[in-house]
Amino acid sequence: MSASAAAVLGTSVPIVLAPMGGVAGGALAAAVSRAGGLGMIGAGYADTDRLAAELRIARGARVGCGFITWCLERDPRVLDVALDHHVAAVMLSFGDVGRFAARIRAAGIPLICQVADRDEAARVLDHGAQVIVAQGGEGGGHGARLRSTLTLVPEVCDLVRERGETVPVLAAGGVADGRGLAAVLALGAGGAVVGTRFAATAEATVSPAALQRMVRARGDDTLTTRVYDDVRGVNWPDGYAARALRSRFTDAWHRKGTGGVPVEHLQEATAQFRDGTRRDDPDTVLVHAGEAVGLIDRAESAATVVQLMAAEARCAIDALHQAAI
Amino acid sequence: MSASAAAVLGTSVPIVLAPMGGVAGGALAAAVSRAGGLGMIGAGYADTDRLAAELRIARGARVGCGFITWCLERDPRVLDVALDHHVAAVMLSFGDVGRFAARIRAAGIPLICQVADRDEAARVLDHGAQVIVAQGGEGGGHGARLRSTLTLVPEVCDLVRERGETVPVLAAGGVADGRGLAAVLALGAGGAVVGTRFAATAEATVSPAALQRMVRARGDDTLTTRVYDDVRGVNWPDGYAARALRSRFTDAWHRKGTGGVPVEHLQEATAQFRDGTRRDDPDTVLVHAGEAVGLIDRAESAATVVQLMAAEARCAIDALHQAAI
Ligand SMILES: Cc1cc2nc3c(=O)[nH]c(=O)nc-3n(C[C@H](O)[C@H](O)[C@H](O)COP(=O)(O)O)c2cc1C
Ligand SMILES: Cc1cc2nc3c(=O)[nH]c(=O)nc-3n(C[C@H](O)[C@H](O)[C@H](O)COP(=O)(O)O)c2cc1C
Repeated sequence: MSASAAAVLGTSVPIVLAPMGGVAGGALAAAVSRAGGLGMIGAGYADTDRLAAELRIARGARVGCGFITWCLERDPRVLDVALDHHVAAVMLSFGDVGRFAARIRAAGIPLICQVADRDEAARVLDHGAQVIVAQGGEGGGHGARLRSTLTLVPEVCDLVRERGETVPVLAAGGVADGRGLAAVLALGAGGAVVGTRFAATAEATVSPAALQRMVRARGDDTLTTRVYDDVRGVNWPDGYAARALRSRFTDAWHRKGTGGVPVEHLQEATAQFRDGTRRDDPDTVLVHAGEAVGLIDRAESAATVVQLMAAEARCAIDALHQAAI
Repeated sequence: MSASAAAVLGTSVPIVLAPMGGVAGGALAAAVSRAGGLGMIGAGYADTDRLAAELRIARGARVGCGFITWCLERDPRVLDVALDHHVAAVMLSFGDVGRFAARIRAAGIPLICQVADRDEAARVLDHGAQVIVAQGGEGGGHGARLRSTLTLVPEVCDLVRERGETVPVLAAGGVADGRGLAAVLALGAGGAVVGTRFAATAEATVSPAALQRMVRARGDDTLTTRVYDDVRGVNWPDGYAARALRSRFTDAWHRKGTGGVPVEHLQEATAQFRDGTRRDDPDTVLVHAGEAVGLIDRAESAATVVQLMAAEARCAIDALHQAAI
């Protein structure tokens, strides 16, 4: 990790767990931190009790916490739980960080902001972001999908340098093995924020059917959709969609154009979703995953993933260095 | 370049010029080849005379030629020009290579196939592709945009290995400097196919207004659209759109959903396009460019670009190797 990213985040391996709502709880975050990375609990749409419970599960490990900014606007008290707990870092994604940045910084907690394009990177720098996560559209879960990791990371690095700042940049989206980690380090990133690969670990809070689908899926098998948000009644602002595994369920309900369920079918689709989820039906369950899901062959423990990714990255870098390009 | 990519393509630097229709002519292709890469003339929608003329311009340099496969179906004689000329390589993009692969291979000319997802990679391997170009959606010009470079390259490398083959994989989309080149080499690519960066060189056949717009644009300033195809009367098959710089012209005519010009406005938009293009009006001219356009600060000669990218990549790799990750 670039000196400053490691220093800000307190990591020995340049890997940060993505704060995956409902998937990255206290157990997964603690495992990643204990392996040398930084584990982030995904607060997602959670309430104060739920977040406090996950923080208790992680107890003893140095973990951070990630929030969906537009959700915080509705219930800012969830942030207090993290600040009171003095978590290792707070990540804000998807929304205007203006209302929360100063409070987080005043608490002495490193502020990480996840951004989808160069313009948003400039805005979070204005608000004092201490780490920027450049999120490419290839990643799993929600995003604005305005850019790809390969071009956004170096452009944000250039922006930081042009402004005379030293804020480290992390890459999110598409990194699931050591090759990807080495690649984003070559782009100038201080490390990678990894979601999908950690979603397919023993410690992630995902169902058996979801885990199996991730291990089997190829990178061609994802789509970006609002179908699952519609049936869960989650009202994401315009401009966001989630990357998830394609399924019989999305084949049936995803409409081109809106990307959502047609209103007249919402009740039927919702009933089907609830029933399929209760049965853990592979054709129905929601599996947020990025294109990098095609690089995952088996479910490991989170510690193994951290160690493997770091070792593979070192190998890739050594091989590159030897090959006279 | 991985031994085999360099061997197949006859390059000393792992950089291949993208066969950009109307932009990569004989002069640009020759310059890239003379600098140690492989220059590819973009046949685009060209006829036999035009291609023969560009090949004459490149005379003396070892250059290849790239075709839009669905255009070849309409006029296969253009391919004969390249085969008769015994070009250094033939690249096929956008369509079913089945009808042409055997003839190209029989002529003893390396067959390069550009693909947009893992499935298409499997299909071109079945047809005997000798090099695969994995094209991510961040790239400039046309594409199916099903995947991003960062995830597609390693997945196609894995596919090749699983099949027990040794076909080299090149990365296209998002590589415009040495950081990007180092990154795709880390992913396992044998080199990069570079479009946008070479479109902004002295040897590219682009207008002064287009060149200036590329140098000034940021990566956030592109969109994928069918507007320019509509006003040029180019009938791309379903599933393809082109990444170009956003402009007053695209703001006026690009419609969400179809991505094209509404039929009832086609005549008006076409007249405006022709007029603006004749005047080289920056707000109107077509500038196919990828997200990596944000990494370009000035227009150089093609030879300088090749040398700079290789030197920067070496620096990035050395720095990575020194940093104990
Ligand atoms: C299952 C899943 C859930 C996610 N939930 C959130 C979330 O609640 N908040 C957030 O900021 N990002 C979320 N993300 C996005 C990640 O922060 C990150 O950008 C992404 O996972 C990186 O790409 P990758 O999946 O290719 O590693 C989620 C991603 C996944 C895969
Ligand atoms: C101006 C321009 C024209 C292009 N024309 C073609 C073409 O005629 N045939 C083709 O196979 N690809 C074409 N492409 C796509 C390239 O082959 C390649 O995939 C892309 O440029 C790589 O991404 P980059 O632009 O980020 O380097 C074009 C790209 C650009 C920028």
